[in-house]
Amino acid sequence: MAEQLRAVQWAPSGALRILDQTRLPAEERWIELDRIEAVVEAIRMLRVRGAPAIGVAAAMGLAASLLRVAHLPRERFLQVLDAGAAELAGSRPTAVNLAWAIARVREAAHAAEGSTAAVFEALHAEADAIRLEDEAMCRAMGEAGQAVVRPINGPRAEDGGPVRVLTHCNTGALATAGIGTALAVVHVAHQRGVPLHVWVDETRPLFQGSRLTAWELARAGIAHTVIPDGAAASLMQQGRVDLVLVGADRIARNGDAANKIGTYPLAIAARAHGVPLYVVAPSSTFDPSCASGAEIPIEERAATEITRPLGTRVAPEGSPAWNPAFDVTPAALVSGWICEKGAVAPPFGA
Amino acid sequence: MAEQLRAVQWAPSGALRILDQTRLPAEERWIELDRIEAVVEAIRMLRVRGAPAIGVAAAMGLAASLLRVAHLPRERFLQVLDAGAAELAGSRPTAVNLAWAIARVREAAHAAEGSTAAVFEALHAEADAIRLEDEAMCRAMGEAGQAVVRPINGPRAEDGGPVRVLTHCNTGALATAGIGTALAVVHVAHQRGVPLHVWVDETRPLFQGSRLTAWELARAGIAHTVIPDGAAASLMQQGRVDLVLVGADRIARNGDAANKIGTYPLAIAARAHGVPLYVVAPSSTFDPSCASGAEIPIEERAATEITRPLGTRVAPEGSPAWNPAFDVTPAALVSGWICEKGAVAPPFGA
Repeated sequence: MAEQLRAVQWAPSGALRILDQTRLPAEERWIELDRIEAVVEAIRMLRVRGAPAIGVAAAMGLAASLLRVAHLPRERFLQVLDAGAAELAGSRPTAVNLAWAIARVREAAHAAEGSTAAVFEALHAEADAIRLEDEAMCRAMGEAGQAVVRPINGPRAEDGGPVRVLTHCNTGALATAGIGTALAVVHVAHQRGVPLHVWVDETRPLFQGSRLTAWELARAGIAHTVIPDGAAASLMQQGRVDLVLVGADRIARNGDAANKIGTYPLAIAARAHGVPLYVVAPSSTFDPSCASGAEIPIEERAATEITRPLGTRVAPEGSPAWNPAFDVTPAALVSGWICEKGAVAPPFGA
Repeated sequence: MAEQLRAVQWAPSGALRILDQTRLPAEERWIELDRIEAVVEAIRMLRVRGAPAIGVAAAMGLAASLLRVAHLPRERFLQVLDAGAAELAGSRPTAVNLAWAIARVREAAHAAEGSTAAVFEALHAEADAIRLEDEAMCRAMGEAGQAVVRPINGPRAEDGGPVRVLTHCNTGALATAGIGTALAVVHVAHQRGVPLHVWVDETRPLFQGSRLTAWELARAGIAHTVIPDGAAASLMQQGRVDLVLVGADRIARNGDAANKIGTYPLAIAARAHGVPLYVVAPSSTFDPSCASGAEIPIEERAATEITRPLGTRVAPEGSPAWNPAFDVTPAALVSGWICEKGAVAPPFGA
């Protein structure tokens, strides 16, 4: 079995070390970041992406960026910290984990008594705790999800045939500090010897499915097939999907879930075919302050992601494009929510 | 107003002249074809695509390819014709118009009495008749479709706001010998001064929406916005789509319609939001010999269209992909079928 991938790490220098996901699958390029601008750039450019990984990377990156000012007096250090936290918080709007992780390290730092060294120590420890908690939560989600990994309508006609999971975007080790959220369920099932076949939505516009999920599944030796997003409904129509597993960037109190664009039509199609769809995400993704999906801010990204895929112009100059990065799946289309504590159901309290 | 585009023409030499659609929108490159192998290649490589255009181009291309053997004796000429017809018929499996057009010119040739010259004349005349009929049918479809070009639920709240049409793939002048099928409805509405805004699904994997439909709409001065296929449902959720217009490659007797991959999930989403979806196609697309969509052969194209979009590898080497070119929308999800005779309803008799 391949060694467990850790996409978000500490470098020996104390910098944040991440696998640059914009280079995958062509190149496994690791980058080390120790300046706040570089961390913001990495999040904005999706060198690190996935709601949990963004939170972990932001907390660790904030700590890493403050190493160079650890000689400043406590009050000045805290000012630099707060400025960095504010800059990071604005880097991407939809994933609630980002704001949550930044708030945690900021509070830990402000609460620490004593010198700058003690403040830095508390900050660094909190960032590392977030990383370790995320890793543990991934494993727990993967295990909690095993209950839903089964052929549709009980045992399959074809004895011993694989359970056919369909997934969207990347929700694996590349999206977290551990083995993933929705894809953790796949990883754990595979580790336990459950025969699986994963249908991987390529996930336009940024191909996180074909670039990242396929790479991660190939690395783990899990059978998979990449499909264009528009072909998922055909597979369901042909009875070739047992369950859909997706992650989330923010889950409202009523269970509405914001996730990568294309999740909502997948959920509509799954419901139309009686295929269950589960949302798998850590507690930090649940946002009780949003009553419903209507209150979740949806990031709109550059039109060029649509008009110039992979750097090649496809649409004519002057044709506008609309590029929302996420959509909102209403709770009514979700068969179940799985977090590190197991299956949970709305309303998700404060 | 821009001059009417004619994407399938006769060259002065008698060759088939087409706009090479693989080069759009970067380049308007016209190519002339007078050998059967070149016509087959152009159809297979999608230099000419769209069910009606494929039929017209096959008929004209067959005639063009026979110019060079017009000196042969009648029986020998008919043998070459039949061999060419068979080769063309196998070039793409899903669009029924291809087989239909080839059968028409072949029958006209065999029925012609007299010398090779008379046979060639009959063949050429039939190919040209198919072209002219297609042009007239496009206009008729565009006019017949005006009845459905209206805001959802009657007049829009915002007075004078445009009718918001969503479309998939390319069903316009580039897909026919005239102004299109589904997009003909848009062209005619625009010519009549109806304010419109067209949401253009980019249409993975081959981007016929962003490459071709956006180009054609821009050329005609029609307001439009390109979206990733996965964002169409979000637009409907936000109440920003009045109707969906799509074409078809083959329509079964019961009304099930095969069309570009991604049409079926669009139809499911449209129904879920109460947005009407109309299928617009000429009579030649209706195939009474198919009882239902289950009998329509679905072309599967190369995995590289998914793994190497626009020539850039996105999926890892060794990750397989599934690439069905079409899907089948069940009749129950179709709000109406429009052909050159007006609105029609299944069963579609022989």
